[in-house]
Parts: sequence; structure tokens; C-alpha cells
Amino acid sequence: MKIPMMIDAVRNKNPLIHNITNQVVVNFTANGLYALGASPVMANAVEETADMARNADALLLNIGTLTSDQVEAMIEAGKVANEKGIPVVFDPVGVGATPYRNQVAAKILEEVNVSIVRGNAGEVSQLAGLEAEVRGVDASGITEGKAIARHAVEALGVPVLVTGKTDVITDGKQLFEASNGSSLLTKVTGTGCLLGSVVAAFLASHPDEAVVKAATAAVTFYNVAAEQATEHANGPGSFQMAFLDALAETTNRTVSANVNIKHHILSEE
Amino acid sequence: MKIPMMIDAVRNKNPLIHNITNQVVVNFTANGLYALGASPVMANAVEETADMARNADALLLNIGTLTSDQVEAMIEAGKVANEKGIPVVFDPVGVGATPYRNQVAAKILEEVNVSIVRGNAGEVSQLAGLEAEVRGVDASGITEGKAIARHAVEALGVPVLVTGKTDVITDGKQLFEASNGSSLLTKVTGTGCLLGSVVAAFLASHPDEAVVKAATAAVTFYNVAAEQATEHANGPGSFQMAFLDALAETTNRTVSANVNIKHHILSEE
Amino acid sequence: MKIPMMIDAVRNKNPLIHNITNQVVVNFTANGLYALGASPVMANAVEETADMARNADALLLNIGTLTSDQVEAMIEAGKVANEKGIPVVFDPVGVGATPYRNQVAAKILEEVNVSIVRGNAGEVSQLAGLEAEVRGVDASGITEGKAIARHAVEALGVPVLVTGKTDVITDGKQLFEASNGSSLLTKVTGTGCLLGSVVAAFLASHPDEAVVKAATAAVTFYNVAAEQATEHANGPGSFQMAFLDALAETTNRTVSANVNIKHHILSEE
Repeated sequence: MKIPMMIDAVRNKNPLIHNITNQVVVNFTANGLYALGASPVMANAVEETADMARNADALLLNIGTLTSDQVEAMIEAGKVANEKGIPVVFDPVGVGATPYRNQVAAKILEEVNVSIVRGNAGEVSQLAGLEAEVRGVDASGITEGKAIARHAVEALGVPVLVTGKTDVITDGKQLFEASNGSSLLTKVTGTGCLLGSVVAAFLASHPDEAVVKAATAAVTFYNVAAEQATEHANGPGSFQMAFLDALAETTNRTVSANVNIKHHILSEE
Repeated sequence: MKIPMMIDAVRNKNPLIHNITNQVVVNFTANGLYALGASPVMANAVEETADMARNADALLLNIGTLTSDQVEAMIEAGKVANEKGIPVVFDPVGVGATPYRNQVAAKILEEVNVSIVRGNAGEVSQLAGLEAEVRGVDASGITEGKAIARHAVEALGVPVLVTGKTDVITDGKQLFEASNGSSLLTKVTGTGCLLGSVVAAFLASHPDEAVVKAATAAVTFYNVAAEQATEHANGPGSFQMAFLDALAETTNRTVSANVNIKHHILSEE
Repeated sequence: MKIPMMIDAVRNKNPLIHNITNQVVVNFTANGLYALGASPVMANAVEETADMARNADALLLNIGTLTSDQVEAMIEAGKVANEKGIPVVFDPVGVGATPYRNQVAAKILEEVNVSIVRGNAGEVSQLAGLEAEVRGVDASGITEGKAIARHAVEALGVPVLVTGKTDVITDGKQLFEASNGSSLLTKVTGTGCLLGSVVAAFLASHPDEAVVKAATAAVTFYNVAAEQATEHANGPGSFQMAFLDALAETTNRTVSANVNIKHHILSEE
């Protein structure tokens, strides 16, 4: 299926996305998923999180505002998601900022099989323990995001989405560079976090496509919607509202007309 | 008092509404109550929730993102509200989705005298254990919301507000069907939750009116404001902002000009 | 440095503000800081809050929705901030409403050296135990905010910012009256809370200026931005978005053209 068309299956399926996420972005994430055409549920109490994951079509784990109870809930929900075979997106927000965050991120990766990791260049390299290596690679002229992504896949053993000016999505066999977007996305809190949930919605709606292809479709749809919203924005406040409108209104035709992706088959396969 | 006029008492009284609600909607609820002309307070720590309820004019209990601490806080606040004689609105968000949620909802109904339950058709029927019965009634041609509402009042022994395309409000003696609204309300998270708080504000401002009449006034004001907002919206993001504007700006004249209610005296009285 | 110019250093430094704040305003605070040109971090788990404070340029403590875990996290972060010598802004939201809130506020003031307290007239007088005294002073013709502020500095031993129609900022040696603003600020939840974080960003960006001068610059910038936003608003919803836009777009020239401050050297020095 062509990447710009893949939004249609999300809107048809209306997947239920179980988000265990941080308290800063929980409202924006729910509104973003509704706008997209998916259904959010945000349960994060350990008493019910496993039961809620059983109802869901995908699971999003985001460590932006951790508590120890929430970590337990994430792992229980992750195990249920793995048993049930639904996609799990892991967003290691702020990993590297504190030892606790590093320890929790490592524990989640150890106990849950995640379908894809989403983070910015710093977060993904921290998670994969790559900083030194990556700096060396940078020097040899490879763009930072691509180098980090390729090394992280090897270190972590799961597909990664490294967000940045160009987003890089790879599973070690193929690699996509997605270059749509708007600088206003960096001025609104939770745009990275919501993207993780949108990726979960695309994975849930395309079980027969490669994870990296569905994730690239999610990123591209998301960023084209941001471009549309930027035309109606005077700053970060009006952008936030226009972006929710655009998530609801952007069609596969608009995505087709604006898509900017490079696809690489990696030599190491 | 005529239902479209009832907003005026809310704005004159500026009631203090104590909300123990879910983390997804807490900001939108506070902003919605301010826009309406009420005052929100959101304390939910067990150390202070009873004291805070003592200051309030009404209490809203919403189980959207439960924790065990919050349940204890809800019950303590509910008992204080009952002692003090202020209205308690109960919103059993997502009841039926997990056993824990069912158990908490039952416990709240057992330990707190609630003035009215607000939920969608699924939640209210789950709460009242009605599903099978209701399906049968449906078949005989009664509209779903009305049937659920009437059976739920009998099963629960408290007034109910069942939201849907037409909202149904009944205490078993009289029944209102309120048919204002906008489909955009279903695209913004927390619009049902905020409605619960708005009902609390109307109950607090009309202690001498029947609960179901004050609740119907709340629903109608809310839905007429949504209709006004829809005229200024390009999608769910701009609707959310326009709706807050409309909660502040909509007058009793606008409500009068648009109100769409049917009032039934029920035969079983 | 002239007060209207002081926004520039915030935008150049892009200070990292660690916010331990209430769940109602956490999203609005993060978006407001991004719009301003600062960077927010919202960690509030006791397992990592001290480590996060070590990374930060200023700390904001806000007791709007307390839990006992959060209180412990606040005190640990406050102690680290004190060791490191970064500014600490304390916002005693709702102090006086419950005994628990009073006790927590007193404990924070006892265990953490705060750079400035921000509150409305009621909160600051409650915190300083001043109510009776202040009423007396009022009667003698001193405006309420000024009297409360001067007495609170004496009682608390730290600078205070008393927000109101005119904001009063004093450390007992000098006193600023800042009279910009918009009545729409009182219709959006979290505008007082976000101001606390904006004050933290100004303190972090002007370590060599008096705390009260940097706080006055913060208040004035904030309120001029609110005036700009009011011109684009139809109510509290559209104001909220326009205000985030204005925090990003308002320049030192706009502040200069609109600034309304009185500066007093206090006789008791």
C-alpha cells in the first residue's frame, strides 16, 4: 500500500490506543488521537492497566513523568500486549536526564517486547549507549539521525524512529528518511509524545505491513498535517489548535501532494 | 423558573465546584467552569479532600483515571458532601471496561448518596446491570437512551442523565429529552466529563428546583453553547477553544431561541 | 538593565525550568515556557526530582494539587536547588483552604530557601498569618496589595509578588507596582501558576539583578503579552491560545511602549 494512503485504514478501523503516558501531554494525546480518527484510553492504575490493555489495539508507553506505580503498570500492560500480540510503542522521554529514568527505560526494554522505539537523537543514543560511537560516525559525514538510528537498531534489537528535522525510521533492513514537518512542532509540548501514539494507531491499523513502513506513514501524515496547520498559525498557541484541526481534516490526497520520503534498502541485509 | 433562564443563577452565585476527576480532563474542566461563571477546585489528595469538600457548593466524582488513593479521597469527600447537603454528581467513566472500575463504581454508589449519575448509554447500562433487559426493550421500539434511563433509575434509585444524540434526564417521575448539541462534542476529550461539572454547578445554583430540571437546564445550556461554537470551528481544535468562548458568552436569550426539549410526566408515578 | 529589555536574556539563555506543579496547569505551564523561549521539565517523582533539579536553571514549587509524595519531592528538589544556588519560586496555591495545605506550605518555607513567593492577596496574607493586621492597615488607606506585600516580607523574610489588579513586588527595600494586564487572565486556569514559572525563567536569566527587579520584568512582560492577546480574543478559549502566541511574539519594543510600573524606595531601609 502507498504510504500516503495509509491514513484511511486508521480512520476506518478507529483503533483503541491504550496510552500510559506522562501527565503533561495526556490531554493533548487524547485530543490528537480523537482528531486522527482513533480512540484513546489513558488508564494507568496498576489495578486495571492489564485489563485495559486486553481491550486495546495498541499500547503506548511514555516515561515523561514517571512514578514507581506507573512503571509497574507499564510492565503489566506491556506483558499483556505481548501475549495478545498487539503493537507496543516505547517513548523514552528524557532518558539520560536522571539515573532513575535510565533504569526504568532499561527495565521496560528488558521485560516488554516493544515494536518500535520513538525518541529524539539524544534520547535514542542515550538509550542505546551510543554517544561516543555516534560522534565518531558523525565526523565521517553521515547525518546524525541516520547514524544514531542504524547503531541503535543494532544495540537495541528493535526498530527505531529518531525524530528531528528529518525523521529516520529503520529496522536495520530498510531505512526511511521523512522530511516533512514544521518548526512550530518544537514549540508545543507533547508533539513528540502524541506522535508516539499516532505511530501506535498506524501500527494497529496495518498489521500486515512492515512496522517501519507503517511508522513512516504515521510520521509523514503527522508532519504534513503540521505543515497545513502552520499556514493557519500566528504562534504556538494557534498552531496547537490548528494542528488538531489538521489531524482531523488532512486527506490522503494532501499527503500525496506533499510527501517527502527517501527509502533505502540497507546493504547489511 | 424557565429552563433557558437558569444559567443566570449560576453566573450570579459563582458556585465553588469541587472536582475529583481524571487527569486527562482536569485542565479542560477547570477552564470550562471558569468560562461558565463557576469556580473550580480540583483537590484530590486524601489528606485534604474532606476539608475541601466542606468549602464547596457541589461535588463531582469522575472515575476516568482511577488510583486507589483517589477512590478513598472520593468517598471521604462524598461523605462530607452528604453531611453538608450539597449536590454530588457521579460520572462512572469507562465503567464496564475493567473489573476494578466496576468495583469502584459500585463502592461509590454504596457509600455516597449521589444526586445524579451522568454517563453515556453504555456506561449507565453497565452501572445498572441492564444490558440484556435493555436490548429487549429496544426491540419493542423504545429509543435506547430513554429505555436505559428509565430502567437505570429503577435499578440505581437515583436520577440519571444519559448522554447521546438526544440526552435523557429522568428521576422516574418525570423525563426530559434534550436534543441540542453538536457532533464536534464527540471529537474533543472531556466534553462529557465537563458536562458533569456543569450539571454540578447548575444543581448548586438551584437548590429549590428538581434535580432533573436543573440537570436538563445544564445540558441544554451546554449543548446550545456547543451549537454556537460549531459555527466558529474548522475542526476539533478550533471547536475546543470556541466552545470555551461560547460557555462564557452564551446568554439566556440564545438558549431560549434554540432550546429543544421534550418533557414527559411518567405514568408510573 | 531596563525592565522592558529583560525578556531578551530569557530568549538568549533558554533556561531550563524544573516545575513541580499541580496537575491542572502542567500542560499550560510547559506550553507557556516554550512560548516564552524557556525550556520546561516537569519531573515530580521522588526517585528523580533531586537529580532533575541538578540539571535545572531554576525551580518552581506549586502546591495546587498536593500529594504527600509530591511534598517530599518538592523538599528534596528545593534542597538541591539551594545547594546549587539556583532560584526557587514558591507558589502557595490555595493556602488557607485546608489545614493540610497550610502545613505543607509552612514546611516548604522552613526547609527550603525560596527566592520569592508568588500568590494573590488572600494566599500571601494567609501564608504570612497577616489577615487581621492587614485589615487594620487597609482602613488607613494603604492599598491592600501593597500593605499585604510589605507585611508579608517582614513576616516571611523573603521577597514577595502579590498578584492582583495591580501586582506588587517587594523585598522590603524597594517596591514595584506593576499595572499592566487583562481581566481575561482571571478567566483561564493556570495563568497565575504559569506566571510563577515565568518569574523563575526571568530570575534564572538575570542572576546579577535584584530578584524583585527580575520578577517585575517577568510580571510586566507577561501582562503586556496578555494585553496583546486580548485584542485577538473573543472569550477565555481564544484568549488562552492568543496568549501563548503573544508570549512567543511580544518584543521588548512592545513592552517598552506599554510598560506601566511605579518604583518606590522604601523608607525603612
